[in-house]
Amino acid sequence: MTQTTRIVVIGGSAAGPKAAAKARRCNEHAEIVLLQKGPELSMASCGYPYYVGGFFDDRNQLLATPAGVVRDPKFYLNAKGIDARVSTEVTSIERAEKRVSFTNLLTGETGSLTYDKLILATGSVPRRPPVPGADLKGITTLQSMQDADYLRAVRDGGTIKKAVIIGEGLIGIETCEALQLAGLELTVIEMLPQLLTFLDFDIAKLVENHVRSKGVNVITGNGIAAFLGNDGVLTGVKLQNGTELPCELAVVAIGVAPNAVLAKKAGLAIGDTGGIVVDQYMQTSDPDIYAVGDCVELTHRITGKKVLAPYGDLANLEGRVAGENAVLGNRVTFPGTIQTGICKVFDFSAGATGLSERSAREHGFDAVSVINASPDLPGFMKGKLLVTKLVADRKTGRILGAQCAGPGNVNRQIAQWAMAILGNLTVDDMANADLPYAPPFSLAIDHGIATAHLMQNKLLGRLKGLTPEEVKTKLDRGEKPFLLDARGPDEYEEMRIGAGETLIPLGALRKRLAELPSDKDREIIAFCKISLRGYEAALVLEANGWKNVRVMEGGIAAWPYPREK
Amino acid sequence: MTQTTRIVVIGGSAAGPKAAAKARRCNEHAEIVLLQKGPELSMASCGYPYYVGGFFDDRNQLLATPAGVVRDPKFYLNAKGIDARVSTEVTSIERAEKRVSFTNLLTGETGSLTYDKLILATGSVPRRPPVPGADLKGITTLQSMQDADYLRAVRDGGTIKKAVIIGEGLIGIETCEALQLAGLELTVIEMLPQLLTFLDFDIAKLVENHVRSKGVNVITGNGIAAFLGNDGVLTGVKLQNGTELPCELAVVAIGVAPNAVLAKKAGLAIGDTGGIVVDQYMQTSDPDIYAVGDCVELTHRITGKKVLAPYGDLANLEGRVAGENAVLGNRVTFPGTIQTGICKVFDFSAGATGLSERSAREHGFDAVSVINASPDLPGFMKGKLLVTKLVADRKTGRILGAQCAGPGNVNRQIAQWAMAILGNLTVDDMANADLPYAPPFSLAIDHGIATAHLMQNKLLGRLKGLTPEEVKTKLDRGEKPFLLDARGPDEYEEMRIGAGETLIPLGALRKRLAELPSDKDREIIAFCKISLRGYEAALVLEANGWKNVRVMEGGIAAWPYPREK
Repeated sequence: MTQTTRIVVIGGSAAGPKAAAKARRCNEHAEIVLLQKGPELSMASCGYPYYVGGFFDDRNQLLATPAGVVRDPKFYLNAKGIDARVSTEVTSIERAEKRVSFTNLLTGETGSLTYDKLILATGSVPRRPPVPGADLKGITTLQSMQDADYLRAVRDGGTIKKAVIIGEGLIGIETCEALQLAGLELTVIEMLPQLLTFLDFDIAKLVENHVRSKGVNVITGNGIAAFLGNDGVLTGVKLQNGTELPCELAVVAIGVAPNAVLAKKAGLAIGDTGGIVVDQYMQTSDPDIYAVGDCVELTHRITGKKVLAPYGDLANLEGRVAGENAVLGNRVTFPGTIQTGICKVFDFSAGATGLSERSAREHGFDAVSVINASPDLPGFMKGKLLVTKLVADRKTGRILGAQCAGPGNVNRQIAQWAMAILGNLTVDDMANADLPYAPPFSLAIDHGIATAHLMQNKLLGRLKGLTPEEVKTKLDRGEKPFLLDARGPDEYEEMRIGAGETLIPLGALRKRLAELPSDKDREIIAFCKISLRGYEAALVLEANGWKNVRVMEGGIAAWPYPREK
Repeated sequence: MTQTTRIVVIGGSAAGPKAAAKARRCNEHAEIVLLQKGPELSMASCGYPYYVGGFFDDRNQLLATPAGVVRDPKFYLNAKGIDARVSTEVTSIERAEKRVSFTNLLTGETGSLTYDKLILATGSVPRRPPVPGADLKGITTLQSMQDADYLRAVRDGGTIKKAVIIGEGLIGIETCEALQLAGLELTVIEMLPQLLTFLDFDIAKLVENHVRSKGVNVITGNGIAAFLGNDGVLTGVKLQNGTELPCELAVVAIGVAPNAVLAKKAGLAIGDTGGIVVDQYMQTSDPDIYAVGDCVELTHRITGKKVLAPYGDLANLEGRVAGENAVLGNRVTFPGTIQTGICKVFDFSAGATGLSERSAREHGFDAVSVINASPDLPGFMKGKLLVTKLVADRKTGRILGAQCAGPGNVNRQIAQWAMAILGNLTVDDMANADLPYAPPFSLAIDHGIATAHLMQNKLLGRLKGLTPEEVKTKLDRGEKPFLLDARGPDEYEEMRIGAGETLIPLGALRKRLAELPSDKDREIIAFCKISLRGYEAALVLEANGWKNVRVMEGGIAAWPYPREK
């Protein structure tokens, strides 16, 4: 481009500044203006819970470059050559004139700017429950820097004692940890039957148990009916089942919706998800307008369907694509999402990538799943437990998704599975993957590879598995399978389910077959701590004529229900 | 199979027991005999350095199942139905008779066994330098349980003060940490110009600096000429340059060679690498004999060449494949290796997967590399530095290899790159990967993704990079490039290279262009702490007419040479 081009970017959190910076790097001479409604720029919003929770104390760290410089308008002007204007709300886009109109929220002054290319990064707005009392003092979200300031003041003030968190998705869980660390007495409320709905029930239940173990009261399957107050101040919440919980603080974390107001008003195409429609170049239905970040819908790379994916990492990657295309013409593409996510939950991590079993079924896949529980490292390196649920396509063996939770290194596991999905790998590919191994970093057979081995055995019909949830359902229905615990007596004394199981250690099984049901058609469910010995026990029994032998996947380590011991 | 099959496995460390166990799981009724020369079974040999270093104290943890049961012959018999015989050396394989002959090393008794299928897992033997004095007391390797016992006794005894380690590959580095933790005064000696030769020099030098920072004396480019002794006891070593170093202990860690003696004697095909030739079924040139683990050669999945890959994780995976094929007929395959490896080096980790730049060139690839230095986590989560060198094919953008070192989370990075290579991904694929992000787990733009972005910029000619090594070479040759440090004055005061660089902070650069060389053809090399600002500075200069602007990749964080400050 020889003529000066003017790029206008609306939105200054993650995707907008990234788009502006990339545009600058692709064209030193373009005029780049960034219009930001809020008072700050480039806020590390994913870091808010950690600021609230006291992982660090300097608020500026949420706004600073790695070298410690706060990313304010002066920084943008000098270091990036970008005219970044804060407290500036864009009120309309006049597409015919290629112009945006704005108001300075501090001075009330209005103005307008024409653009050659416009990039929308208008983000998302927190959803709020449509119930009475929502304007009481003491109700907040954790979406803005101001929300973070407010909740940090709650921590530092120390006068608020009881809080509820409404909604237990990623932000809800992170806020839960932050407020528990701040010393508050906490109840978390989730309308659905489980928290972290990107997980299947099996894995979510393990996370829920961990949250409870920290003294947090968890209520699932019950939504909020009303906020209760006195003199305009929150005093409690009422649930749909009538329960009233006194509290001085309520954090609403029931998700976010794309902020597509400006785009809609300007007549840009909006998808069924509510997000702005963009193509692979991040271009909207108007070729002079790009859109990026939480305000757009993306293509799911497995299902091909449009989905919302309001993740900070993707916002940055999308911004980079749009920034380049806006100044150089459409040349780079963004392929979409597999909705990879991870969160810290006290001493657990929980993450997922691709499809859950539930979503895979909903999308018509003949999905098969398996649960694996095993440590991340050898015992002598103090390995910590990981519980993974892997989902694959039965016909092709293609990996569709994986979920993992536990005190172990979930981070590496989810990163590996995400890469496996991006590479279109099958279970067989993963079963012989060449991954980094040394005792400080993984088991000799990495937990993920072992999970693939279990899935191979399942696909081949060698492992006839039942999830702990399926076993519990059978028992609750009054079925009487023969439950075979294949561990040692010491382990049994220390911890056991106590559902009428019979203890026969694997090492004694071949000699004690007479203790098994004489009816070879009787259902037998074998397990151990993680069900490796349970699996071997099942193979021994099958080879000796029992015809209906199942293995409880993940063993006691994946059993999320109360135990006798 | 309706008839009882007899499977004989030779070798009881990693691959052998895994093959035997898998064979059992695939056929409960086969007779499975495992013959092990040493007194123990299933030793976690990769754990030896951590036992020696005092990470744990119970020797049995190296031999036990996760449930704490030592894997001795009784365990194998009862839990696995495997007849495992220790201290039993196989002396020959009579292929015509399908028979092995053995000697009990304790009783001297001999015997023989016929087999239907034989699985060789004879492992490797440590290489030893062909120099005088090699039989002195005080010289050891760290290959066997007995070696580990010996070195642990050195730690616990506390009387030996000075040690040398000869060879600085993976085992050498791990031994180095172990003996330093044991309180020994250490010198490590490497004949080649760098340690960890699976890394390129740039990354290896960073690791070397870290080892030195722990008080270890590192000598490179100098091999051992002789072991020196007195009364049969080691008193020192003499190097090829004549230096003599007094020491009471020498650990030889110059690598391992496949132990293919039995296979060779039996007339099986042996490859140029010295490893037993196997096909994708892990079958040797004799269809009734499989071979697995350190004694075989594998196919490199990028080059297609035969290589040795004596890694514990692969040994297990190969064992699993051979065990199944031996009892069910050839049905599963092992695809080979990309030589992924990782090791802990005090507070650093260092790992690699695929090809180094050097090896990629040697294999005829038009390889391009880039170095990225950035933290693993945001500053507010106390992110630690990672330095990655990525290698890609210039024409196709295919990822050929990656190396990473530093105090940060190298484990996730190498796992990701390994998966990228296994999925045949390109740099563009990795640039928009959907990976797990939350501040406790990664940067918003993951270090690996950022590395791919740099590579994209390099492949497009936008980033004209020089490695720190290339810059140093220029300076050492007396070239006088204009060195532009784009950081802030505070950072410059705290740390600087001191090679005559000019400090112009990026934020001031556009106003201070007059301070740049008036000769627009003069070579300018821009950098900063990690060279993000250095890159932006270079783009500003190029847009203003300077024609020969380079960026020092990785910045000061990747500069492995002495600095002024």
